[in-house]
Amino acid sequence: MSIITILTDFGIQHEFVGIMKGVIYGIAPDVRLVDFTHNISPQNIKEGAMSLWRAYPFFPKNTIHLFVVDPGVGTRRRPLAAKIGDQYFVGPDNGLLTPIIEDAERDNKPMEFVNLQNPKYWLAKVSKTFHGRDIFSPVAAHLANGVALSELGPSFTDPVRVEMPKPMKTANGWQAHVSVMDMFGNLTLDLPAAALQNRTDVLFRLHGVEISGVVESYGHRAPGELVAVIDSEDYLELAEVNGNIAKRLKAAPGDMVEVILSE
Amino acid sequence: MSIITILTDFGIQHEFVGIMKGVIYGIAPDVRLVDFTHNISPQNIKEGAMSLWRAYPFFPKNTIHLFVVDPGVGTRRRPLAAKIGDQYFVGPDNGLLTPIIEDAERDNKPMEFVNLQNPKYWLAKVSKTFHGRDIFSPVAAHLANGVALSELGPSFTDPVRVEMPKPMKTANGWQAHVSVMDMFGNLTLDLPAAALQNRTDVLFRLHGVEISGVVESYGHRAPGELVAVIDSEDYLELAEVNGNIAKRLKAAPGDMVEVILSE
Amino acid sequence: MSIITILTDFGIQHEFVGIMKGVIYGIAPDVRLVDFTHNISPQNIKEGAMSLWRAYPFFPKNTIHLFVVDPGVGTRRRPLAAKIGDQYFVGPDNGLLTPIIEDAERDNKPMEFVNLQNPKYWLAKVSKTFHGRDIFSPVAAHLANGVALSELGPSFTDPVRVEMPKPMKTANGWQAHVSVMDMFGNLTLDLPAAALQNRTDVLFRLHGVEISGVVESYGHRAPGELVAVIDSEDYLELAEVNGNIAKRLKAAPGDMVEVILSE
Repeated sequence: MSIITILTDFGIQHEFVGIMKGVIYGIAPDVRLVDFTHNISPQNIKEGAMSLWRAYPFFPKNTIHLFVVDPGVGTRRRPLAAKIGDQYFVGPDNGLLTPIIEDAERDNKPMEFVNLQNPKYWLAKVSKTFHGRDIFSPVAAHLANGVALSELGPSFTDPVRVEMPKPMKTANGWQAHVSVMDMFGNLTLDLPAAALQNRTDVLFRLHGVEISGVVESYGHRAPGELVAVIDSEDYLELAEVNGNIAKRLKAAPGDMVEVILSE
Repeated sequence: MSIITILTDFGIQHEFVGIMKGVIYGIAPDVRLVDFTHNISPQNIKEGAMSLWRAYPFFPKNTIHLFVVDPGVGTRRRPLAAKIGDQYFVGPDNGLLTPIIEDAERDNKPMEFVNLQNPKYWLAKVSKTFHGRDIFSPVAAHLANGVALSELGPSFTDPVRVEMPKPMKTANGWQAHVSVMDMFGNLTLDLPAAALQNRTDVLFRLHGVEISGVVESYGHRAPGELVAVIDSEDYLELAEVNGNIAKRLKAAPGDMVEVILSE
Repeated sequence: MSIITILTDFGIQHEFVGIMKGVIYGIAPDVRLVDFTHNISPQNIKEGAMSLWRAYPFFPKNTIHLFVVDPGVGTRRRPLAAKIGDQYFVGPDNGLLTPIIEDAERDNKPMEFVNLQNPKYWLAKVSKTFHGRDIFSPVAAHLANGVALSELGPSFTDPVRVEMPKPMKTANGWQAHVSVMDMFGNLTLDLPAAALQNRTDVLFRLHGVEISGVVESYGHRAPGELVAVIDSEDYLELAEVNGNIAKRLKAAPGDMVEVILSE
């Protein structure tokens, strides 16, 4: 029994994701399907990259992650399947896997990429505009059935990468960025908590507003206070207790946050 | 192992769809459940009809499609189950199956309709306002368990139909309509690509704006350009590359599109 | 085979719910997962309470209901698992179970609560901000695998309760409240239909607008009419036929509704 996760920018207004599930179950009736999100902003590869990168470590070995954020559908962009560490990935070769590949490089995990050239594992009829249905879903289902990566097409070693935001060291701290906004408006930074080396004499400045120190959790301050916490992936996060800091400060992913350690 | 798909106008704000799944799993614990969409506009039978019609061909034999867009709940409208070709359908008899029935008539597929009159396959207590939970979900689950259609109630042959939009032939082309707007604002027309007989010397006029020719896929033109493509169901589609043509032209399903072939 | 339902205030914009499912499937690969809703208003315990209370009776014995509306995450609020009647519940001890507990008290159902203190059934690493992933999901999965409640931590008997709205008897009827607004804008009251004892000579007054009598179902009146019906849980409900009474009267959960019987 395999798990196939699905991440798209299709929204849930329409039947597109349901159709992909029909294709998958038709080939691999015993898989478990998990929706990550279908609300990636249209064609936003970096947002999809952050989402998949934060989620995949919590899945068991041999999970197959299917992602379809695909502005290049029907052009020459490569369709790929990959094994990175002990998990599988299927989608367009457009950089969405960048942070997962960077992790694997850092941790010396094995990586294998194939260009999906073997039509035996596609639907019989392939459209120009919906490879999520016609190529990626059937390939993911065949992987779940035990088809080898090498069966799906020739291997390659140069997956497309995108430039992800990175914090920059400054004289007294970092220029970090908002990397993710969650459903409460909480703002995760691209700065790991480890960068602070347990110091809490730290000041965060976002859109001219200053937040001082790092608290253990939201509930340790009164509703309405702005706080910094360590988020569930061990990154620094700015939040308004029981409120929405993103709305209050009109902040969004990509915004710069100064992180300043006391002298 | 059967698949039951679910299409409703219930939204996902509340627990209604989850309750239907509880009822189904209680009767048929081994089914696979697939959500098509729960975001059909309230009581919009034609929108539900388009959605189900586009999705059902991608599902395996014996899939059971449960649909609840049901403005007539609690009145005398018939509750139905049907077998059309090799797939099953359960929901109110209100015309939502019209395009699927039209396909079956064209392709000479067998069709069978029954009026759900046998309370043995309902919940013990039936409300006046939530037959999705009390009648349609348990009936779908019993079908999945192998109960015969004829067990569910008397058969009938005159399912309700609704008038679906159809393109009209003109002197030099067609008066077509926007039939579906997808999550990117792309506009599918009710005109099959086959109608063009491979001609590409064609002009589309929507709200006074003209789009010329048919391109292979979005990525073959620059972001911001308006293009016509052949969509994934082989219908003509108007799109803005990496943009939203529906917003740009304030267009919506039902709008008229002139399709003009060169003389 | 067990069912685990999930109710959160996480929204579906992000990957958080998907991550919880990865954790669950990693521990209990054969469970069935059902999403109730992830659109509970942020930190709104009473709204979550209404939603879970309306849904749980439709699930089979031994279903495990996982709920994460958790403003106190990372503080001293207790994490709990409970067996109430023949169903299980896992989540923060913050009052969300109040109406289910009240039902059980009324019906003399057995109840058992444990404080989740045994880290053996958590993820190896527990964050301060996402116990849904690190504690509640793995505990629910272990319950599905047959781990006994008593293994999870010490029992307790004083779960937190919240004050739920209740109708008040008046001289000639009740002061009731809107308890739930559904996707059509229909407004359920906190007054059971049984309170009327089959009388239909009743007047509802909401924001100065009067609705007279109780009809059998929406379709028994013309589109646009305001009606009272008995909802699918046997509570009184105000609706606009094929319309949205909540928008029309600018009404919302919590609003007062006078229910007046004729003299």
